[in-house]
Amino acid sequence: MKGNIVVGQSGGPTAVINSSVAGVYAAAKKLGVKKVYGMVHGIEGFLEDKLIELEDYLDDPVGIELLKRTPSAFLGSCRFKMPKIEGHEDIYEKVFEIMEKHNIECLFYAGGNDSMDTVKMLSDYAAAHGKTQRFMGVPKTIDNDLPVTDHCPGYGSAAKYIAASLKEIIRDNESFGAKKPTICIVEIMGRNAGWLTAAAALAKGEDCSGADAIYLPEKVFDMDAFMEKVKHLAATKSSVVIAVSEGIHIADGRYVCELANENVAVDAFGHKQMSGTAAYLAQLVASETGLKTRAIEFSTLQRAATHLASLTDINEAFQVGHDAVVAANEGKTGMMITLDRNGDDPYQCGTSAYDIHAIANVERPVPAEWITEDGCGLNEGYEKYARPLIMGELLPIFVNGVPSHLVRK
Amino acid sequence: MKGNIVVGQSGGPTAVINSSVAGVYAAAKKLGVKKVYGMVHGIEGFLEDKLIELEDYLDDPVGIELLKRTPSAFLGSCRFKMPKIEGHEDIYEKVFEIMEKHNIECLFYAGGNDSMDTVKMLSDYAAAHGKTQRFMGVPKTIDNDLPVTDHCPGYGSAAKYIAASLKEIIRDNESFGAKKPTICIVEIMGRNAGWLTAAAALAKGEDCSGADAIYLPEKVFDMDAFMEKVKHLAATKSSVVIAVSEGIHIADGRYVCELANENVAVDAFGHKQMSGTAAYLAQLVASETGLKTRAIEFSTLQRAATHLASLTDINEAFQVGHDAVVAANEGKTGMMITLDRNGDDPYQCGTSAYDIHAIANVERPVPAEWITEDGCGLNEGYEKYARPLIMGELLPIFVNGVPSHLVRK
Repeated sequence: MKGNIVVGQSGGPTAVINSSVAGVYAAAKKLGVKKVYGMVHGIEGFLEDKLIELEDYLDDPVGIELLKRTPSAFLGSCRFKMPKIEGHEDIYEKVFEIMEKHNIECLFYAGGNDSMDTVKMLSDYAAAHGKTQRFMGVPKTIDNDLPVTDHCPGYGSAAKYIAASLKEIIRDNESFGAKKPTICIVEIMGRNAGWLTAAAALAKGEDCSGADAIYLPEKVFDMDAFMEKVKHLAATKSSVVIAVSEGIHIADGRYVCELANENVAVDAFGHKQMSGTAAYLAQLVASETGLKTRAIEFSTLQRAATHLASLTDINEAFQVGHDAVVAANEGKTGMMITLDRNGDDPYQCGTSAYDIHAIANVERPVPAEWITEDGCGLNEGYEKYARPLIMGELLPIFVNGVPSHLVRK
Repeated sequence: MKGNIVVGQSGGPTAVINSSVAGVYAAAKKLGVKKVYGMVHGIEGFLEDKLIELEDYLDDPVGIELLKRTPSAFLGSCRFKMPKIEGHEDIYEKVFEIMEKHNIECLFYAGGNDSMDTVKMLSDYAAAHGKTQRFMGVPKTIDNDLPVTDHCPGYGSAAKYIAASLKEIIRDNESFGAKKPTICIVEIMGRNAGWLTAAAALAKGEDCSGADAIYLPEKVFDMDAFMEKVKHLAATKSSVVIAVSEGIHIADGRYVCELANENVAVDAFGHKQMSGTAAYLAQLVASETGLKTRAIEFSTLQRAATHLASLTDINEAFQVGHDAVVAANEGKTGMMITLDRNGDDPYQCGTSAYDIHAIANVERPVPAEWITEDGCGLNEGYEKYARPLIMGELLPIFVNGVPSHLVRK
């Protein structure tokens, strides 16, 4: 590549999205790219010409190691949706104007479904208007719901956090071992796809019986069956811990959290802001059974807990950033890097570049064949898929007792 | 010691209460104690003669290392309150009967205020009835509210979890950097004492501006002043993260969480079960300012997250268990082991045995001189006190991607 490049981060942060930035930077330096710019707050900041030079932070190996251990979006994120081209040509032209101003040949965008739509729109515009700039998507989402790719960077670390933390919650909940158990309901992120909630299944091991029931949004949530299940568990166990997705919904399509609160807020993409599912169910169970209940939400920690990130995930996040630059250097555009699993034992994974049109705005749910027949558990098919993704650790660099992070000046 | 000993765990679990059991076991073995029993579910289980022999789990060094890394109460906990002696002599006699049955010379009880009351009652009964058995308290509480001792085992690890997790939440919250910030309110445990909430101050460092305001239960919560503070922060910052204790209360004595929900449940000790403070405040701020808000509760993870325990805390928890056995071996009874700080730079801490009557049922609040004048922050006095307690890490033993624990068969 003769020109410069720019990388941006978009959508909800993950524990490893910064590793992808490190991967982009590392590949660019190997290929002799002169300047690697970072968009401050994604395409929204880019449109205001807000850029930094990554060299200022990453010119020594410790900077790169610290960036890999920094949660959330180092460059700043955004939730800006590119409008349809017709009638908004000025916004598209502005993007190319800023690219030309800084001699930027290729734009790399790390994000999930909505962000891949940005890559698609920009590469479509370039193709339609004879522009030579290239656009590459770098997958990133804790939700793990991008199609084509075997899995998404960000998921493994979130899954590891969920599995490890749920195991600690189970340990805590079973400590009292009363005749009447405490019913603990843990709410996990994932609006339409249950990948994150499924990770509750990974708490199970020789030293832990795991979650007692797991409810994914892929199945309609039946309140009566749920209550029956809880009563059965309470009668047979001295501790009950149940994982529910924030996105579970009843037969008429209403989210369970909506049953508690009719005024659910909506974000810039029109997505309802979920929260309160566990609290609602815990209250219902308490009033129906008289048992002590506890509602726990992992909230943003499941996407920000880099201190417990998966090394596999960190390395793969680095790899997709790296390989996006390699692909762009070969002339590719309008594509996203996918992770392609080559084997389970030992686990092996490569990458390739795939047409963004097959990816943008498509959501991949948890396959039905991995959900147990009773609808509230995952079978060994899921475990075989997910276990390799949470393997390995990368220790934080502790300063004054807390993990140290890299921050923009 | 010629006879055997027994150790029990009581009250809310901590990340390091099992280290104290390991310390009791290690000292007993050094002193040639024949059998070290563990009570299953504290004094409640002991009254039903539910005992295990620790030798079965700890006869190899790996067992002890695994126990140190196991959260919650390995032996099982309870919330059983010894009744007043008069009219309940049968319960007290039962304790001594079981001790005699197993030739138990000394009973060690790890717990907080309520558990130290059990030690006091039993040692008082022994003294009044010419019994020779001895009773020693081993301090344990994330709440850090036991008097006399400089600090309590369990606190350092909870504080480390709170500081590290809050830092990750701050990083996440600042990623969007919108003109209108998201107001994130984090609820932290601590009914009457604000020690845990104060730990939010430890998130601050060269790479993190820290919590924007910290509200402890030691100060009356002024809703108007709070709302004014939030509005000022929202007008001047692109991210606002506020830490509140679950125990904050308004001038008439009502807890803030009671304002949201009149039917607050009460536990066996008559303590109100707290929860919902952050959710209530987040809702208030949203409706008053129109800003996006988010409520986060650390919930049981702050006492169960052994994967992020403080090495200093683990070592001190071990030490107080160890030294309780040494003190009992010297003939002491009716005492609790205290941690006595000998210096800050470098941090040094010894132990001594202290009369349980000065400790049981006494709660120690955060000193007023460590709270900033505006009532919503901690000064360097607190940091000097608390920072050494969160230093150091003890890595989990990861198996299949999650921390491994020791469990009873």
